[in-house]
Amino acid sequence: MRRAIVKSEIFSEAQFHDIDPMNIVWHGNYPRFFELARVEILDKIRYGYDEMKASGYAWPVIEMNIRYAHPMTLREKVKISAGITEWENRLKIDFEIRNKETNKRLCKAYTTHVAVDLKTNTMLWETPKVFRDRLEPYL
Amino acid sequence: MRRAIVKSEIFSEAQFHDIDPMNIVWHGNYPRFFELARVEILDKIRYGYDEMKASGYAWPVIEMNIRYAHPMTLREKVKISAGITEWENRLKIDFEIRNKETNKRLCKAYTTHVAVDLKTNTMLWETPKVFRDRLEPYL
Amino acid sequence: MRRAIVKSEIFSEAQFHDIDPMNIVWHGNYPRFFELARVEILDKIRYGYDEMKASGYAWPVIEMNIRYAHPMTLREKVKISAGITEWENRLKIDFEIRNKETNKRLCKAYTTHVAVDLKTNTMLWETPKVFRDRLEPYL
Amino acid sequence: MRRAIVKSEIFSEAQFHDIDPMNIVWHGNYPRFFELARVEILDKIRYGYDEMKASGYAWPVIEMNIRYAHPMTLREKVKISAGITEWENRLKIDFEIRNKETNKRLCKAYTTHVAVDLKTNTMLWETPKVFRDRLEPYL
Repeated sequence: MRRAIVKSEIFSEAQFHDIDPMNIVWHGNYPRFFELARVEILDKIRYGYDEMKASGYAWPVIEMNIRYAHPMTLREKVKISAGITEWENRLKIDFEIRNKETNKRLCKAYTTHVAVDLKTNTMLWETPKVFRDRLEPYL
Repeated sequence: MRRAIVKSEIFSEAQFHDIDPMNIVWHGNYPRFFELARVEILDKIRYGYDEMKASGYAWPVIEMNIRYAHPMTLREKVKISAGITEWENRLKIDFEIRNKETNKRLCKAYTTHVAVDLKTNTMLWETPKVFRDRLEPYL
Repeated sequence: MRRAIVKSEIFSEAQFHDIDPMNIVWHGNYPRFFELARVEILDKIRYGYDEMKASGYAWPVIEMNIRYAHPMTLREKVKISAGITEWENRLKIDFEIRNKETNKRLCKAYTTHVAVDLKTNTMLWETPKVFRDRLEPYL
Repeated sequence: MRRAIVKSEIFSEAQFHDIDPMNIVWHGNYPRFFELARVEILDKIRYGYDEMKASGYAWPVIEMNIRYAHPMTLREKVKISAGITEWENRLKIDFEIRNKETNKRLCKAYTTHVAVDLKTNTMLWETPKVFRDRLEPYL
């Protein structure tokens, strides 16, 4: 995960309700795992959901991409890493899920977000100052 | 489902993402099936989510009970019935899920809701007039 | 939670994907929280999902009941307790979710499970010896 | 959706449990909508989940990509289209979600699947004959 200016990681575990009839985590359940890491990295830069709202911006996802390399299995303990890799025009967060013990990479992913001004409901072509200020210490 | 003053039914199908490693719908996924029938019956009395909000009340669930008689399986087509069985002090909706072809009952359930005044954020001990008015044609 | 012969607790946090438009955890998402505590208590008695299967029994949920006292909100840190309260004819697990800091109880719940012999696919009216053996140290 | 050799479409509706605190369908809930269309198109070529298994192959998702153009909102009725756009070395299904009434496109997506031989647990570099046979009528 080159180029990330801020990184975070968090640990989780695949649960029974994540698993499909093929005995692996259903591909559509991965976004919940990324969410844990997204929350962590946004907390780190003090720009979590509440701060976003208070700052007057929403940050909807405009793209999500997930590449599944190896299946996650029941009770597998995983490390989920997140890194902010774009921040000037939009927010891009890269993710990786690795087996906690072996460090084997199970998947790579990213989500891309744009800032939307909550007052005018218009999309911004550059990320707002408030967001860049939070990244300042890491630039 | 005796005593229901309004009834509705809707059809659905168990999908891959509902199924757990035991090849049956995970018990915790049933609330999504009930939701389909709840929406249907509240639409029928013209008191859906938007109308609730507009009327100044929220209707949080205070109890949910589900009795699972037979498992739901992948691609099983089901009929979900809902009936309003209490409405004076609180809203109680009874549910049944049956196999669409055989009519075999797969589960019974209910959810109990109380009205909360959105202005004062207080719970009501009697359901508000606006709600009873919607039920009037069925009483 | 009287009468529990084994107890366990685990900590979790309400995430963005758990929250509904009323800004509280959607009532149908609670089963995922109970799952965390169920896994914990079954691990404790060395009778988790893999051991269940290896022992020749499945333990489907035949009833789930949830009483919601106070809403769970975004990022709320919670303690989820589980206790085994019936084990002779069936397995009953009682649950509580409390705010981690204030200890305020947010909900009470239980799930009831019966043993099914995987070879004959028949329901047992008494829990199997293998399960009681695991509880032995706690009786 | 050019190049699709088979197409299907299905209708659905965004429900309360799909919606997040921003009052739009949570980005991580879209895979459940695609699943409905995937099932439809695989049924059409008579190669659904049961047929896959019976044929000796699993088809895990190796990539999922979703581009969100406009948010889906509560009770929005949508048309979900699927088209098979690659089938020689792997299976690629393209998806679109459009508002049912206005036909406005809400999102584009694809999932890529590879065939895995269930006996040897090895990934195939060409799709198996059984799968191509099902596509034969459409080639």
